[in-house]
Amino acid sequence: MRLVVVGGVAGGMSAAARARRVSEDSEIIVLERGPEVSFANCGLPYFVGDEITDAEALLVQTPEKLRESLGLDVRINSDVVACDPVSRTLTVVDPEGAHELGYDELIVSPGASALRPPIPGLDSTRVLTLRTVSDAVALKARAQAGARAVVLGAGFIGLEAAEALRMRGLETSVVELAPHVLPPLEPEMARLVREELVRLGIDVLDGRSATEVEHGPDHDTVVLSDGTRLDADVIVLSVGVRPDVSVWEAAGVGSVAGAIEVDELGRTSVPHIWAVGDATRSVDGVTGTRRPIALAGPANRAGRIVADAVMGRVGHTVPTALGTAIVRVGELTAALTGANRRALAESGIEYHTVHLHPLNHAGYFPGASQIHLVLHFGTDGKVLGAQAVGRDGVDKRIDVFAVAIRAGLKVADLVDLDLAYSPPYGSAKDPVNMAGMMATNVLDGTLRLWHAPDLDVVTDGALLLDVRSREEVADGHLPGALNIPHVELRDRMEEVRRAAAGRPVRVMCASGVRSYLAHRQLAQAGFDSANLSGGMLTLRAALGPGLDDLLETGSPSLHTTPIEPSQRVTVGD
Amino acid sequence: MRLVVVGGVAGGMSAAARARRVSEDSEIIVLERGPEVSFANCGLPYFVGDEITDAEALLVQTPEKLRESLGLDVRINSDVVACDPVSRTLTVVDPEGAHELGYDELIVSPGASALRPPIPGLDSTRVLTLRTVSDAVALKARAQAGARAVVLGAGFIGLEAAEALRMRGLETSVVELAPHVLPPLEPEMARLVREELVRLGIDVLDGRSATEVEHGPDHDTVVLSDGTRLDADVIVLSVGVRPDVSVWEAAGVGSVAGAIEVDELGRTSVPHIWAVGDATRSVDGVTGTRRPIALAGPANRAGRIVADAVMGRVGHTVPTALGTAIVRVGELTAALTGANRRALAESGIEYHTVHLHPLNHAGYFPGASQIHLVLHFGTDGKVLGAQAVGRDGVDKRIDVFAVAIRAGLKVADLVDLDLAYSPPYGSAKDPVNMAGMMATNVLDGTLRLWHAPDLDVVTDGALLLDVRSREEVADGHLPGALNIPHVELRDRMEEVRRAAAGRPVRVMCASGVRSYLAHRQLAQAGFDSANLSGGMLTLRAALGPGLDDLLETGSPSLHTTPIEPSQRVTVGD
Repeated sequence: MRLVVVGGVAGGMSAAARARRVSEDSEIIVLERGPEVSFANCGLPYFVGDEITDAEALLVQTPEKLRESLGLDVRINSDVVACDPVSRTLTVVDPEGAHELGYDELIVSPGASALRPPIPGLDSTRVLTLRTVSDAVALKARAQAGARAVVLGAGFIGLEAAEALRMRGLETSVVELAPHVLPPLEPEMARLVREELVRLGIDVLDGRSATEVEHGPDHDTVVLSDGTRLDADVIVLSVGVRPDVSVWEAAGVGSVAGAIEVDELGRTSVPHIWAVGDATRSVDGVTGTRRPIALAGPANRAGRIVADAVMGRVGHTVPTALGTAIVRVGELTAALTGANRRALAESGIEYHTVHLHPLNHAGYFPGASQIHLVLHFGTDGKVLGAQAVGRDGVDKRIDVFAVAIRAGLKVADLVDLDLAYSPPYGSAKDPVNMAGMMATNVLDGTLRLWHAPDLDVVTDGALLLDVRSREEVADGHLPGALNIPHVELRDRMEEVRRAAAGRPVRVMCASGVRSYLAHRQLAQAGFDSANLSGGMLTLRAALGPGLDDLLETGSPSLHTTPIEPSQRVTVGD
Repeated sequence: MRLVVVGGVAGGMSAAARARRVSEDSEIIVLERGPEVSFANCGLPYFVGDEITDAEALLVQTPEKLRESLGLDVRINSDVVACDPVSRTLTVVDPEGAHELGYDELIVSPGASALRPPIPGLDSTRVLTLRTVSDAVALKARAQAGARAVVLGAGFIGLEAAEALRMRGLETSVVELAPHVLPPLEPEMARLVREELVRLGIDVLDGRSATEVEHGPDHDTVVLSDGTRLDADVIVLSVGVRPDVSVWEAAGVGSVAGAIEVDELGRTSVPHIWAVGDATRSVDGVTGTRRPIALAGPANRAGRIVADAVMGRVGHTVPTALGTAIVRVGELTAALTGANRRALAESGIEYHTVHLHPLNHAGYFPGASQIHLVLHFGTDGKVLGAQAVGRDGVDKRIDVFAVAIRAGLKVADLVDLDLAYSPPYGSAKDPVNMAGMMATNVLDGTLRLWHAPDLDVVTDGALLLDVRSREEVADGHLPGALNIPHVELRDRMEEVRRAAAGRPVRVMCASGVRSYLAHRQLAQAGFDSANLSGGMLTLRAALGPGLDDLLETGSPSLHTTPIEPSQRVTVGD
């Protein structure tokens, strides 16, 4: 049997290698359009930034090694330009010309190429992409010669490229059409990443698009939709990818929205043609919708399963995808898994959200740092999505959430997770346990939340109760807030009652912990009370500089009439 | 309602705090025998080792802060010496004498004290334990004055104490009755920890016990079962703990093997008495057996659930425990979750095991290091237990396994896990995915393993095929092995056939990856073939110095008759 695999990176190479391991007697030919197979595409930005200094290190495999070790016939610089599915014949163009190649079974893993939006001037030689080793070598060379870089697109690869260029000493700007960097992140998470980019000295121009690239003799100029002009010696185009499917569509392979449609075994609509990787649509594990998920992990794992299926070993199916992704930005890590607000809204799934800011490990152990965490969960308790930003331990928590979502766990199960604890690694109540506790509290009504976007409604119709210390409040508080430090609340409940005057009470503190304690007292005392999810930390991240404009310093403007001790009601007595 | 909580650390304090949050109007009294509540017992070794310099940092809460924030009546130095469950009255001894205290509901969280085996001389003032802040202060003072330390017991706390003392410059020995340090670890994992201890300059005396402590004027001498004599200025006793249950047993609370028996809500056999923490028996989440699990995480989480139940909020139950645990030893991390071989054997659960040594993150990204991983799984594919030792990323993988076990996932599910990948954090095929792939290969027969303990049988009755390179083999190989580098195997299959002469072929390489490729070729060529799980790395860790005595250097002794190229059989043709 002759198996031909088109595309020798990630999904394609995983498929070829697995096919050999389960079928020693098949002929397996891998056709790769480019000059390298199985290269480390996720490592390219680190090569540009000189964390990886040797381009050879990016070449995980070579055709020679693959022949020796796996008996694969790997042909580089071999572009498939046509496919006749009836005669099962490919037309391949390689340096020696065009020729035909028959197949019994065909796995296509063509990947995706950089999306090129219709921006005038984008054909400048100073505009580069970052998809292959030669792209990276070219970008590095240009970066060495240049002083100013503009990165178009603030997705994962765009930010990695921007940091790499900045670390090389270039004046670096990153332009993003969406309102914030890393569009799949929630805005209150993306803001933290944005601040880190700014700290690195990167100019972040979000909510704007490039409208033209003007070519100059010494440099180009990127013109943005708001009129900003950015001079650039090098421009990185990283605004997304488009599956390379034209050959396959021409061969009759069914596609939707430009991506190949496959079933749970990787079968396309055409017999004997299978597909994996960035060019295919994955089924979202949370919402059930189909979309291309251009990530290395799912591609690699799908390759293995499809190879099994091609070889008649049917048992496993290509898993649904959670789109789990992670990026290092300066000293921060940002990661997400499962659905975000937009995906949940689009799918009409009802959900709750909690924000928390736990420490990555025991606070008394040196080096503890905060993890900013968002958890979305269904009204049935099902874990739907999580995002985290922090210095340490972000990857671990997102992986734990990814397993929880894959396993269909509910938030009550998160409480029970028996995670590895000792002071250098975590806390007796791990951030994931804590998130589960908060979420179960929300579901059973123990905790009622208000969220940053509710601020206008809250300031209009409720008493805002700030339970931070006087010192914290003096540094900046919302206008109209009543300040009662949480440790004084039991003795000053009557003051709250007077100030509220029948209105709901909306509590807040720095991170949501003290205000939760206050909320519990208020709720049990009969108030219509709710607690700001994530406290000032989340409010600030959600509203950005807009919040600072709002804040007042000094003592809060709202003072209640002092109450004689004899009038005080101690709740619970 | 008056709730009395006995024991103000971990489980007890979690229960008291949760009780307040759900019941503002209860009277909640916490009685703590010692001078501190809610202190960081897991942080004590790091205080001894000066990573935590301020003892205050270990005091997470104070009675005053708990009163202010939660309205708890916390009474330290208050020892409960008797309980009359009929009148619901405790007898409490505090600095002012004995008095009685009534309760409506009682949660007991007495914890456990250091086990004191009947060793003559153990009453020396130089023998200390490490259970409380004052223990840690005393140990640190003694360590500052002394030069030689002996730690009795190489469990988690024993090793943390030994490292702390060694880091302070003391000549440090650790004595362990079990055959290896960290007895819950598999021997092939524990060996790696042992080597790190030795690298730190700690003398490891395992498989031996202390039989006497001789008191001297300047120092004590610990005499071991093998006659070894260890002079010591300070001796740390850390051979285990025993639940403090005598008061409760006297009150009629049912216990088994010295630990309080509780149901899934924390109820004891006596009405209105509940129990949590180290003094109770947990249900093992894998084997279903009951045993005390003295860990902070489960205690904290149980406290919360029991408090809910006491307050009539019944919904969640105390989860089964996996005994997930982790320890930092020098530059290594060792961790485990779920069942080990002993627990599985004792429970009569049939299982398979795979060993692997993947990198913590992409190999081409700087700083990659190996994670040594063991996975036990049932014949039905269920994930039963995992252990890992390595420099980085161990905690993350063990947490992922812990969630998988909690969720009842099977090894095929591990293949599908969509974990966060980018080069600084992992690989497109994460170590956990890899473990799942290997395990599914074992289940469906694609991979057949032999294990280190089978070595004698293998050398007696099989052809040992070492597929490492000639250079690796020359550095040390098993006697009688045939060396065919894996890349040459396809062309030299006939040599294997001749050398095997009808015997099974048992393949090996350095880590099990290349020998897996060879195994697949051999199996498909009709050989009775199996692959050494974890390769030489695991063999060395399992057999220890015994292996080095066995190994031969230079060219392997077994040479096959050279075969003419024309005679070669290319498998698959």
